[in-house]
Amino acid sequence: MSVKPFRWKKSHLEVLDQRLLPAKYRKIICRRPSDVAKAIRDMAIRGAPAIGCVAAYGMVLAAKLNRRLQLSNFEKAGRLLKSARPTGVNLAWAVERMLGAAKNYLFSRPSVPPRRGGRVKVSLFDVLLAEAGRIEAEDLRMNRAIGRMGAKLFRKRKNVVLTHCNAGALATAGHGTALGVIRELHREKKIKKVFVDETRPYLQGARLTAWELAKERIPHELITDNMAAHFMKTEKVDGVIVGCDRVAANGDTANKIGTYNVAILAKYHRIPFYVAMPTSTLDLKTKSGRDIRIEDRSSDEVIYINGNRIAPRETKARHPAFDVTPARLISGFVTERGIVRAPYKTSLKKLISKHGLLQNRQPVAN
Amino acid sequence: MSVKPFRWKKSHLEVLDQRLLPAKYRKIICRRPSDVAKAIRDMAIRGAPAIGCVAAYGMVLAAKLNRRLQLSNFEKAGRLLKSARPTGVNLAWAVERMLGAAKNYLFSRPSVPPRRGGRVKVSLFDVLLAEAGRIEAEDLRMNRAIGRMGAKLFRKRKNVVLTHCNAGALATAGHGTALGVIRELHREKKIKKVFVDETRPYLQGARLTAWELAKERIPHELITDNMAAHFMKTEKVDGVIVGCDRVAANGDTANKIGTYNVAILAKYHRIPFYVAMPTSTLDLKTKSGRDIRIEDRSSDEVIYINGNRIAPRETKARHPAFDVTPARLISGFVTERGIVRAPYKTSLKKLISKHGLLQNRQPVAN
Repeated sequence: MSVKPFRWKKSHLEVLDQRLLPAKYRKIICRRPSDVAKAIRDMAIRGAPAIGCVAAYGMVLAAKLNRRLQLSNFEKAGRLLKSARPTGVNLAWAVERMLGAAKNYLFSRPSVPPRRGGRVKVSLFDVLLAEAGRIEAEDLRMNRAIGRMGAKLFRKRKNVVLTHCNAGALATAGHGTALGVIRELHREKKIKKVFVDETRPYLQGARLTAWELAKERIPHELITDNMAAHFMKTEKVDGVIVGCDRVAANGDTANKIGTYNVAILAKYHRIPFYVAMPTSTLDLKTKSGRDIRIEDRSSDEVIYINGNRIAPRETKARHPAFDVTPARLISGFVTERGIVRAPYKTSLKKLISKHGLLQNRQPVAN
Repeated sequence: MSVKPFRWKKSHLEVLDQRLLPAKYRKIICRRPSDVAKAIRDMAIRGAPAIGCVAAYGMVLAAKLNRRLQLSNFEKAGRLLKSARPTGVNLAWAVERMLGAAKNYLFSRPSVPPRRGGRVKVSLFDVLLAEAGRIEAEDLRMNRAIGRMGAKLFRKRKNVVLTHCNAGALATAGHGTALGVIRELHREKKIKKVFVDETRPYLQGARLTAWELAKERIPHELITDNMAAHFMKTEKVDGVIVGCDRVAANGDTANKIGTYNVAILAKYHRIPFYVAMPTSTLDLKTKSGRDIRIEDRSSDEVIYINGNRIAPRETKARHPAFDVTPARLISGFVTERGIVRAPYKTSLKKLISKHGLLQNRQPVAN
């Protein structure tokens, strides 16, 4: 069973502080939406799907705190949560979906079916908690489906797979997207080895992906990000699989900084490059990569490692948290509904229009 | 004036411990060849040309310690020094050159011209010290020439240049090869900005290149290695310039791990990729990149940063210290004699045959 990066506890949300892993295992208690926003902003929790889930619970906390059922309270909490990190789409998507559920409740006041004879009124809190639980459960279900779909892409008996950053259980509601595929391959005894990019500056690969793989004894080797090409040339790599934070309508994909590097290196070595994408990360409203806002984070997050400065005082670092991989470098998207191939403009649109977004759940418009 | 990574002091060699930079400025005193070999092996000093220079002084120390003039003593010291690191060619080249000078002395016992009337016998120590001094002075001269030659490649008024690792004053006898070009560009007011790859795992870019640039107020920005492609796409990069540790006869080039990555990324973005190469780093005896032995270093050097573990206990890292960039990705070699262009098999051979190796100094054969 894979690790859980967050857990709803009756009246609060518990978030595993991923900044301290694997050295320390500490939980953060979130009692208000602002606690959740802070955990997202400070990257105690990260990974687009996981951020979406905790933001949904952030909206539940808003309902808990605001007994006076004013929509404006929820909208305020939603804005706060959405502003925590701009690039990943799941955050905004989950907040909008929760707002939609709140509006629905406020305008229709539904009640649950009779229980022990009488009709019991449900509160907004109950409604939102149920909705957040659905988002979480759907995410887990999507990850498992992505795992099964993705594993079929690897036909060899023993595969060497390279991954960047952490698209694992820690980045989602559990199991993981890219790591979901790797977990499934391992279950089917089809993994020879996973090359894990350490993923500077936050070292999510070294700290989180290696940790998840080590816990499940999936064979892996850690490499610095700049070793990828060397091993693509000197050892056989059968495929690269990564997660994503926002996929535009044309297939351009924002993901952790360094993904674009790896995609170019894979292309050069003719290695398939797959993006594991739950449909919740697809954003048809964003036309192309140019329209994706890339979050700029602080120089210090590059220059200090564990509190130690690695560069002279006069030096400033750049720190885009994400980059955009153009669709032409992507061999396919692994979704919970199957593999999506180029031309993406039509195939991604079809993916949604055929099924609707998320098991026929209507996408929540702004 | 650029920093000196080593200095001969009458009876010993002083080596700046680059592992501690920029936080601490500490010198290591080397009194025996084994001290020099250790400083090379432990990477207190690094950079192919600098390693060549200090190895030459290591042979001087051998002469100082072994008053009984037996060639076998020198050969033993030479073997010890050469075994310290396998990939860079300057180390073996400098040791062989010193051995040649020792043999020359032992078989001919030259004397210096009359001084104050009498003939003064020179010792082997004097002869070797003079030879090491020549290697050092030639390296500095080559770097300055490389700087001038390389600067001509950049025609724009203000250039953005990207570099990997440290091919600066700290990697050579001073001034630097790739950084020699950047220094010259800066002197000519043609630098807009230098992107400095931090260069994991040793962080030579963050610690050493940024330090050299900061000292001379050359505008620069530090990036993690995996950001290179992002900035090649989103900001204009006019050229990449790196150093080298061994260039094979066909132009395949061993340099710090990650160089091959950058070369592919530059090719993809149609950015010229130059290698600054003093002729002392050209190894015509090595036919191609396949024949270059890549040094494998310890997993711990990747997994510990400043004494802090970044990955779980169960995880092992790979650590090739170098990679090989195939000749086809290299736009040109910047040598002290001018720019060498493809086809390299003929142009590199011509470079040497026309001038001989190092200002008509005969290459010392094994």
